[in-house]
Amino acid sequence: MDDIEIIGLIAATLTTAAFLPQVYQTWKTKDVSGLSLPMFTMFFVGIVFWLIYGVLKESLSIILANAITVISSFLLLYFKIKYGKN
Amino acid sequence: MDDIEIIGLIAATLTTAAFLPQVYQTWKTKDVSGLSLPMFTMFFVGIVFWLIYGVLKESLSIILANAITVISSFLLLYFKIKYGKN
Repeated sequence: MDDIEIIGLIAATLTTAAFLPQVYQTWKTKDVSGLSLPMFTMFFVGIVFWLIYGVLKESLSIILANAITVISSFLLLYFKIKYGKN
Repeated sequence: MDDIEIIGLIAATLTTAAFLPQVYQTWKTKDVSGLSLPMFTMFFVGIVFWLIYGVLKESLSIILANAITVISSFLLLYFKIKYGKN
């Protein structure tokens, strides 16, 4: 692994670690009022594109970060559809 | 620009576009209660690392996405520090 990839992995760890408590809190509180369904769907599709980009670029950092985020975003989307009123 | 970069730019557009209304809404409502300062600081530092990664990898998509996000995250951090009580 080269030095650039280490910087990418630091980036991936920080942004992914910052996102996960949000997922946990939403799961615990069932409060999805702060999530806009259209915006979050757009975000989710964007993450899927980032994942494809990472695979095509053979970038371990991008693949790891977005694989984890795609799963946790999917959970948030599921919570939103299950618990959301608006 | 190659085909892979087009996929990256679609990804960048979607995830960045999904994030901006959050910034706008926070600016309008001054409601920063949903933002955790430590988590958001971690996210911000992560985005800075992604930006460095994008520059080193010479990836236009990663640079564009994270340059915009670093500015808007900085605004959110500023709102949090200015308006946040907890």
